[in-house]
This record gives sequence, structure tokens and C-alpha cells, in this order.
Amino acid sequence: MKTPENQIIQRFRSIGRAVHGSGQIKAGIGDDAALFSPRAAHETILTCDWFLEDTHFVQRAHPPDAVGWKCLARALSDIAAMGGRPKCFLLSLALSQASTGPWLSGFLQALRRAAHIFRCPLVGGDTTRSRSTLISITAIGEVRRARAVLRSTARPRDLVFVSGTLGLAALGLRILEAGVRRSSRDVALKKHLYPEPRLALGEWLSAQGLASAMIDVSDGLSTDLGRLCAASHVGARIEAARIPMPTVRQVRLPKGHATQANPLELALNGGDDYELLFTVRPRKAGLVPSSFRRIPLTQIGEITSGQKLQLALRDGRNVALRPRGWDPFRQR
Amino acid sequence: MKTPENQIIQRFRSIGRAVHGSGQIKAGIGDDAALFSPRAAHETILTCDWFLEDTHFVQRAHPPDAVGWKCLARALSDIAAMGGRPKCFLLSLALSQASTGPWLSGFLQALRRAAHIFRCPLVGGDTTRSRSTLISITAIGEVRRARAVLRSTARPRDLVFVSGTLGLAALGLRILEAGVRRSSRDVALKKHLYPEPRLALGEWLSAQGLASAMIDVSDGLSTDLGRLCAASHVGARIEAARIPMPTVRQVRLPKGHATQANPLELALNGGDDYELLFTVRPRKAGLVPSSFRRIPLTQIGEITSGQKLQLALRDGRNVALRPRGWDPFRQR
Repeated sequence: MKTPENQIIQRFRSIGRAVHGSGQIKAGIGDDAALFSPRAAHETILTCDWFLEDTHFVQRAHPPDAVGWKCLARALSDIAAMGGRPKCFLLSLALSQASTGPWLSGFLQALRRAAHIFRCPLVGGDTTRSRSTLISITAIGEVRRARAVLRSTARPRDLVFVSGTLGLAALGLRILEAGVRRSSRDVALKKHLYPEPRLALGEWLSAQGLASAMIDVSDGLSTDLGRLCAASHVGARIEAARIPMPTVRQVRLPKGHATQANPLELALNGGDDYELLFTVRPRKAGLVPSSFRRIPLTQIGEITSGQKLQLALRDGRNVALRPRGWDPFRQR
Repeated sequence: MKTPENQIIQRFRSIGRAVHGSGQIKAGIGDDAALFSPRAAHETILTCDWFLEDTHFVQRAHPPDAVGWKCLARALSDIAAMGGRPKCFLLSLALSQASTGPWLSGFLQALRRAAHIFRCPLVGGDTTRSRSTLISITAIGEVRRARAVLRSTARPRDLVFVSGTLGLAALGLRILEAGVRRSSRDVALKKHLYPEPRLALGEWLSAQGLASAMIDVSDGLSTDLGRLCAASHVGARIEAARIPMPTVRQVRLPKGHATQANPLELALNGGDDYELLFTVRPRKAGLVPSSFRRIPLTQIGEITSGQKLQLALRDGRNVALRPRGWDPFRQR
């Protein structure tokens, strides 16, 4: 039946076939709903994520290719943060008039590539029209029973670790906004446009029983550390000197570009990093390697009793760490 | 941590607690993702559904109460159409400035009532701001392994049945659009504003092994029968005289209201009914009762080989049945 809606649905099927041998998918695109066959002794991870034009991306700065990649990558970051493995995803897509044609092709091609690389096929969704382009991704993952790493299980004296470098993605956004020309291989631009969810690391930390609590840094360290601590009813003290952040050279923009970014401010409050922030019991801290598959793992502080977040500055002063990361509801 | 976003998340928690004894939910609102513990010998049903301001509802005509109820009810209709039972849902909500305050309270109250009645707690989601209010619901259900009823398994000579009355919801929309005053208990208005997914019926048809294929009528019989037939590589012939449709008295609007609706046209092409359309092997047709828990079940035609959809009119003529239900991508 060749209705216009059905023709769009046909194009999604190839993203459903992007992963071979997903024997757990019993029915996918084209029925009322998808059917997923869970493995014994596993729990199912469920998470959804908005990716909206003019809130999370803008047509002018973000190519369709980056939109297609990033909308799935960031949804899967929540699965990484539970220590799980992605299994499939649903796509709710509302297209503006400007987003059909070449935009849609670029978007779908990148989404297909991401689905293939993350071994996570599209199994269903809903498509409609709207004034601006709206994306909501629901990601489904699995984790061995009782192995999921929650936010709420950190304890005082646990050590706080973070993967990778914080603040690079926010720097990449500033570079784009300032219209500065940099190579597409620039590490900050790549981190902003094509983030990599830390799936292998999250799964390994869960399998080894190393992480006592975990969250992904999606809205900024100050906000996400606050969330982990609030859920665990604890506080934390982190050290500015230990936080892996962009170098002074990386943040230097050419003259005439007003946005001179501060590396610490980017690392604390810049969003979109999709690194993992996790805690480790003191007796296991020695088991955490300095890197995992070339991703640095850095101890940046420790969990405290009480519920305060403190930042130790390089000059020895201790200041309160306030949640200043991304919050769509804050008055600006 | 009292950030504005966290304060909104707090309000969602009560919808997560709307259902008692959901022992299958291991972690819900407040972590990176929800954890669902599937039952042995069951498959998981996954489906998502848009509900967008100015596409699926308008602030002027639809009270927040109806928006909250209907966004979940229509998502669960897809689970009914697989013969499954709802287990939990995720809510992606983007709020316009006008939708905070009393609107949000009314919306959440109705959503909570729907979650309670359908035994389907909220377990997670994502909340942000936008110009208009955007809702995407992901519903998760379960069905006993190999018992899910697909769209693709109808065979020639199967009989075609439908539950309830088709076209009432579209009539309700016309009544609202025409500004005609009717009691809030008016059956067409209720059907449009507060639809009831046919969950018990779907589950019963699956458990009895009665339905050979099934779909919910969400976009109109002509479109949804076309989808079932296309998926099954069959055709169908249905009889206008058998289709349960609004009465002539129901569709009569007061003088001065231009929208004189045609009952057959409403039943064929009106959307939003959320009734079940299912097929039954000829030898089992006698086992289908004339009603199930006071919902009429009506045989309206049969499946044919070939892939044509035909409509037998009351005057004996046969005409082609074209998909003229709701399609967001059709040029209008």
C-alpha cells in the first residue's frame, strides 16, 4: 500500500536490518509494536531521550549526519551508565518540510551507521509532520540480573572516577557557534558532533563489579555528580587539579572571537560529554586501571557523608560546587 | 538537589507509584534508565507514539485532562493489538510556557488516573522545554511467548471482525470543531477525548488463539485494513451494511453547522477509534461471541487472495476501498 507514510516507513527498514543475527527481535518495523525476546537471568534497560531542533541541535550548525549519529549515541549513553548492552531502539520522528529530501537521507544514513556500530537495530517507531524537526529515541538494553549499576548506591569514602576528558564537547559547541574554522578531525568538534557512548567501559565496570554507583555526564559534571550524590544521600569532594579538562591550547580561539572559554568552567558545567562518572569502594580502587581501551580513567575525588558538594581549587581553597550544567527549565 | 528540572521530575514519581505491586520494575524514575524484569516464557512488546500539540490535539478544544488520558490510552492500544498486557511506560515531555502551571497539573492528574486504571506505571522519561507541547509515549507490554498476534498472519478465507463502533471518535472531533454543545457524556465526545484501549479483548483473543491476525484501528478502517492486508499479502472484501457505524441520529448536527457527517465515511476513514480489527480462521469463526464484556464484535467481511481491498455497497455494487484514513504526510 503506497501511502506517503508507508513510503517513509520503508526507508526505516534498512536501519532495522543494520545489525545481523539479532535473534532476540521477533517482530520489528511494520507491526503494531516490536517484539523483543529477553534472555534468561537478564533485566531489560529502558530509557528515552529528546533530540529537538533549536533545543538540542540547529540546522545551521549541525549537519544531518551529526544529528543522526548523535541522537542514538546519547540515548545509548544511558545504557552504558547502567552497565548494560544495547539491544534495539525505537524512533519517534516528526519531520519539518525542510527536513525531508536530502536532510532525511543524510540523517538516516548516519543513524544506520550508528545502529550498525553499536549493534542496536531500529525495531519500531512513529513518524509524523511538524513545524520543526523532533526526535525522541527509546533505547532498550540488557544487563545480567542484579548487575545494573545504579546512581543510588554510592557510599562515603568511595572514590570518584571519570572517563575521558570533560568539557571538550562544550568547547566544540563554542567553536561551532563562533564560526571558527577547524579541521573536521578536531577533537573538540568531533566530541560535540559525534560523541561515543562508553558502552564497553560501562559493561566492563559492571561485569567486574568495580563501580559501586554510576551516571553518565550528559549535562555537566557539577549537575550530574549532584544527581548521583542526591540519589545516594551522600556528598562529594572533588579536586580541580585532578579533573581531566581541555588544554589551554585547545580552548584558545583566534583573536576577534569573544568566547574565550575557561577549561575548568567547561569541564564542570559544559554538557554533552557522555563520559562515565563512577564510584569505587576504597578497597577496590587499586583495581581500576589508568585507562580502558585507550580511554583514560581518572580519580577526581571522593564521596563524603553529609550531602554537600565541594570543589578543592588549585590554590587550596574549598568552595561549594553548585549544579550549573545544562537545565532546560532554568531561567536564562 | 532542587534544580527546576528536578522539581518537575519529582512530580512524575507519583505516576510511577500509581500502580501497586509491580514487582517487575527494579529501578524507575530518578536513575539513568529504568530496569524491567521480564517474566520467563514471555516476550516484551515495545511501541512508541507521538501526541503533538497542533497535530494530535489543540489547546483550544482539548482539555489537559483529555490530553493526559489519551496520550497513554492510544499508546496502549498498540499493546492490545498484539494481544499483550501493559507493564510500564516512558514519557518524553516537552512543555511550552503555557503548559506549565494548571495545564501540567491537569495533564499529570489524568495521566496518573490512566496509569492506575491500565495498571501501567511511569518508569522514566525525559523532560524539556519547547515552543509547543510535545509528547512521546513508549509503552512496554508482555505477552506469552509465541502468543503475540501479528498483522502479517491473515490468510484467504479468514473472516474479518471489528470491535465496537467505528467512526464515533471522528464524529466527536467534528462536534468539537463545530463548537456544538453536547453533554460531556455524549458517546462520540467521550470516544474522541477519552478512548479505551481494548486491552482485555486483545489479551483474550490471544489467549484463546482466536485471532489469526490483528491491528488496532487508529487511523481509519480503510487505512488500517490495508496495512493488515499488505503485511499478510492478502486482500479483503468488506460489506458496508455490516460495518458498525454511528447512527443517523448521532451524526445529525444542529442547523447552521456545515459539517454534516456521513456515517459510512466516518466509519471507513475517521481515525482515533482504537477498536481492534482481527481475522479468524473459518473453522473458528463460530467461537467468536457477539460481544465481549459488552463490547460488540461484528463480522464485517472476509480475507481474499490477491491484494485488492473491496467494499460491497448496500446497493450491491463492489467498489475499490482506498486508504483514506489519517496520514500526516498526505498533501491536503
